Amino acid sequence: MNNPVRKTIATVCLSGMLDDKLRASAAAGFDGVEIFENDLVNSHLSPEGIRDRCADLGLSIDMYQPFRDFEALPAEQHETNLRRAERKFDLMERLGTDTMLVCSTLAPQAIDDDDLAAEQLHALATRAAPRGIRVAYEALAWGRFVNTWEHSWRIVHQADHPKLGVCLDSFHILSKDPRPTGIATIDPEKLFFLQLADAPPPDMNLLRLSRHHRLFPGQGSFDLTHFVDQVLATGYTGPLSLEVFNDVFRQSDPGPAALDAMRSLLSLEDGVAAHGPRGPYRVGITEPTPSPELSGWAFAELDVDERSATEITTTLSALGFVHTGQHRSKPVQLWQHGDCNVVLNRTSEKTSEWGTAELAGLAVESRAPDSSAQRARELLAPRLPTQHADTEAELHTSATPDGKRIHFCRTEGDDPTSWRTDFTATGTPPAGAPVLVDIDHIAVAEPFDHFAESMLFYRSVFDLRPQAETEYAAPFGLVRSQALGNRSGRIRIAMHAAVLRRGEWAPEVPDPEHISFGTDDIIGAARSMRDSGAPILRIPENYYDDLDARYVLDPELLSEMRMLNILYDRDDHGEFFHFCTDLLGSRVFFEVVQRVGDHRGYGAANTPVRMAAHRQARLHRAT
Amino acid sequence: MNNPVRKTIATVCLSGMLDDKLRASAAAGFDGVEIFENDLVNSHLSPEGIRDRCADLGLSIDMYQPFRDFEALPAEQHETNLRRAERKFDLMERLGTDTMLVCSTLAPQAIDDDDLAAEQLHALATRAAPRGIRVAYEALAWGRFVNTWEHSWRIVHQADHPKLGVCLDSFHILSKDPRPTGIATIDPEKLFFLQLADAPPPDMNLLRLSRHHRLFPGQGSFDLTHFVDQVLATGYTGPLSLEVFNDVFRQSDPGPAALDAMRSLLSLEDGVAAHGPRGPYRVGITEPTPSPELSGWAFAELDVDERSATEITTTLSALGFVHTGQHRSKPVQLWQHGDCNVVLNRTSEKTSEWGTAELAGLAVESRAPDSSAQRARELLAPRLPTQHADTEAELHTSATPDGKRIHFCRTEGDDPTSWRTDFTATGTPPAGAPVLVDIDHIAVAEPFDHFAESMLFYRSVFDLRPQAETEYAAPFGLVRSQALGNRSGRIRIAMHAAVLRRGEWAPEVPDPEHISFGTDDIIGAARSMRDSGAPILRIPENYYDDLDARYVLDPELLSEMRMLNILYDRDDHGEFFHFCTDLLGSRVFFEVVQRVGDHRGYGAANTPVRMAAHRQARLHRAT
Repeated sequence: MNNPVRKTIATVCLSGMLDDKLRASAAAGFDGVEIFENDLVNSHLSPEGIRDRCADLGLSIDMYQPFRDFEALPAEQHETNLRRAERKFDLMERLGTDTMLVCSTLAPQAIDDDDLAAEQLHALATRAAPRGIRVAYEALAWGRFVNTWEHSWRIVHQADHPKLGVCLDSFHILSKDPRPTGIATIDPEKLFFLQLADAPPPDMNLLRLSRHHRLFPGQGSFDLTHFVDQVLATGYTGPLSLEVFNDVFRQSDPGPAALDAMRSLLSLEDGVAAHGPRGPYRVGITEPTPSPELSGWAFAELDVDERSATEITTTLSALGFVHTGQHRSKPVQLWQHGDCNVVLNRTSEKTSEWGTAELAGLAVESRAPDSSAQRARELLAPRLPTQHADTEAELHTSATPDGKRIHFCRTEGDDPTSWRTDFTATGTPPAGAPVLVDIDHIAVAEPFDHFAESMLFYRSVFDLRPQAETEYAAPFGLVRSQALGNRSGRIRIAMHAAVLRRGEWAPEVPDPEHISFGTDDIIGAARSMRDSGAPILRIPENYYDDLDARYVLDPELLSEMRMLNILYDRDDHGEFFHFCTDLLGSRVFFEVVQRVGDHRGYGAANTPVRMAAHRQARLHRAT
Repeated sequence: MNNPVRKTIATVCLSGMLDDKLRASAAAGFDGVEIFENDLVNSHLSPEGIRDRCADLGLSIDMYQPFRDFEALPAEQHETNLRRAERKFDLMERLGTDTMLVCSTLAPQAIDDDDLAAEQLHALATRAAPRGIRVAYEALAWGRFVNTWEHSWRIVHQADHPKLGVCLDSFHILSKDPRPTGIATIDPEKLFFLQLADAPPPDMNLLRLSRHHRLFPGQGSFDLTHFVDQVLATGYTGPLSLEVFNDVFRQSDPGPAALDAMRSLLSLEDGVAAHGPRGPYRVGITEPTPSPELSGWAFAELDVDERSATEITTTLSALGFVHTGQHRSKPVQLWQHGDCNVVLNRTSEKTSEWGTAELAGLAVESRAPDSSAQRARELLAPRLPTQHADTEAELHTSATPDGKRIHFCRTEGDDPTSWRTDFTATGTPPAGAPVLVDIDHIAVAEPFDHFAESMLFYRSVFDLRPQAETEYAAPFGLVRSQALGNRSGRIRIAMHAAVLRRGEWAPEVPDPEHISFGTDDIIGAARSMRDSGAPILRIPENYYDDLDARYVLDPELLSEMRMLNILYDRDDHGEFFHFCTDLLGSRVFFEVVQRVGDHRGYGAANTPVRMAAHRQARLHRAT
């Protein structure tokens, strides 16, 4: 009993790849770590490799976490959950750790039944026992039914299994009760783990939201169209006045911020005008030119320097693209595969040690390019000067707030106004049986302090609808993701931003952007592209072990995906398969995706794995 | 009725000085602005000047805001409030605006009485009417009694004055009810103003706090000493494990972050050990060397280059300091005034176009410098190599996480170990009757992503107690401020950080740091220093007009303060008077403060005014 209290740290506390985190923890003198699941899944180290690395560093692995949504579920899900647990126990044996954290359930199917929770946790502990594993049950402060430590303790007490105990987390307890009593009476044999975190005062959510995170209309979650409609229905004729307290806007150059603000009101008026039958009170509303139908991506445009050009064209060739056109007056190439068009502009600008390859332009098919361009101007998009010769097509070009070119065009084979007429055919015909169908989406990265502005820009100028916003923990920080799409689903943009950024300790992972091509045969595409020598991004084995625990997939399919480095996601509407190339030049890559059913996601759940793999590949290439 | 809806923007939405905001709003095509009080108070433009500037830019001033804590107060406060309102009406007449925003009260003395609220608002409108001013009453979502638009509307309806109406703010309404009904029935004559803001979903405060803002123990608000004490009382012998989800730590170099984490546990153990009687369960707790009493600041140390040296020494002279000592072996000067010591190290490093003057070292008086240094090392402060000749005193020197030197020393006139023995007397005696008493506090600036780390460092190494944390809206972004002090109040540190920073659009205002000297005669000090030619920072007239509205101050005192550029704050314990110099070199300045009664603040409320004034002075100097 005279040993000093051991000090451990969850890997989730620190930034970096798992190896970075372990080294930092050991150097700071920690005795051990909790391994956070995502850190393991993203790692190219095997579980045994992680165990050895920790041993070399003098670190114990004190816990594996988190295991979610286990208890108080209907019988069928309980069986699936036990299968999932067995897979994680396998993993824990390989890691050499004996404690698993189980968080109180958030599952919508869960039942408010302590007896059932105790019974199922008892069953879990019974499976864990022969392997020498302990289960530590923790009440999340927002757990559906179990959200106090007392409640988790009652259930553990009732389940009465020697391998089942509680984990206390100061955050979940003190955020609800600053001075809890009764903890001292817990049986220490049943108190398996203690997690510590401090936090700012948990008071007044709305006040904090109001003072720090207000947004201009169209950048957040409020239905302001309906609201303004109601106010105008009174006969109100005063101004629409913006009052927004926002940490980011407060420190941004007010020039662009004011334009962003004005765009939000113009876009709001557009929404109000379109909202319902026109009444007299809507007389004052100005309505931008309605958006003509946008039927798809005409092309995506990359700026590439000499070094990256080779890398990009080699990769495009391996993906089955053919260099079909050469611009009449500029050093610009057109590459085609099916209906996918990629335009490469030669640039001499150097943006990174890896060479320059920048997603520089987005070209959309518009039924009426003039009107689209007019709408963009009305919504305060700066118009870029077009430098076209008399014989060339006029591209209606604007710029996004961060300087990407936007072209509105109408592609008709023989139409003399088509952008295609600017290219002389190289004579090489496009490939015969394309495996790629179209550009599925384009993913752009934004600095965190331009995210809301860019989102509103794309949303209003292209008349897109925001889809679910998500956040995920990437190796070097949280990443926020917002997808936008138009009614037909033909124009899809996925936006990413680090939620915060100042420290630049991981410069090998700059904000990546990509062009995603759709296919109807992901396996065939992956195989043929691999065989053609495409630089396909290598995904860690741990990812597939985790997939196997999470989903019951056809073993043959899983094995093919593992071999071909195909990532997987699923929701209630369908499935999503995708694979990526390595990073090319500064920060772009290509992706191939297959949507099965009506899946509307973009594989955001896999982004941390992809980012970690890109980082790994860069480290590998650098050495 | 065919006029387009007017579009206006509150100046609080944008960053910068008032003039920056007005220009940006006009350029973006806004018709008018709401003037936010702080923007006016911080401005060197007079109200008439602001009116003219808006007119030149084609902007109307649609509202002045906010006026707080007015309604439903006891009779005596009601009279004070009417006086305050009259001052603001004077101001509004000068500005040429006719609508004042009144937010529903948060005042602790307010009474839950709608009749009284209506009666007092009626009285306010009655005062406003002859001046042609309207009062727009707005329910804050967190208003004490009035926090829904329906409630504000009932009170306005009941008060029944033509110059009293409601202001609707989408944030306050939609954050509580996403689809409000009934708004359309409001009498448009009574609907004076509409403010629009969007926001992220206002759900699950604890979840957001947990996933983004957890902190290491000692960096937040939780009483973790008590908590850990309770857990150890069970007989728990498992590890203390940190589990912290934090946006900043997730993107910080994990090396220093892990050290910060370890320091938090060491400091926590220190707290637990000191917490109560030692029980058997505390056996495992390791306790750092207890902190010897720190009895005050020995000196503050500036690194200055040639250009700044002149500026600094001229200013010190004007503040009554005398160059009393010259270091035996280094280009280091000692300047003294009373018990205030400032050490200047000559450096050749250039940190800004304004020259280099950096707060580089903090020296504290310790009863046992060895033990203090030992404690610092145990708490993982890097020890700096001391380059002292054999005949010189050994300074026990460590470094803060951001590289400031920390010296622990014991100043005794004839003690051969005193740091003073390193200096040869210049022969010039210190001034006879010092007006400055001591170093009251030292204010340091931290990058936002090192704030928690530095706070914990100062707190644990110097054994300080955190005082209230505040946030204020400075011209170029929100600033967070945290004061720390020891038991005796002899060591006080005020920390500042921009809550966020990427955009650098206002480089004239780098993170300022200062040394604050205490006096018992602020008026005398200000007068003599002004007469000696000290570069005293000029405070805008608007600030004093606002002081006059907020407090009933002796007119003669107010007039002296205005003339001498003295700032003022007050709380329940006493008063705080202070004035500052201009910025010297890169980012430092001196301050002189007088505390009356037991005031424990640092003038944080005045920091935005001070920052705006420093910016103004720099702009002025640059042209």
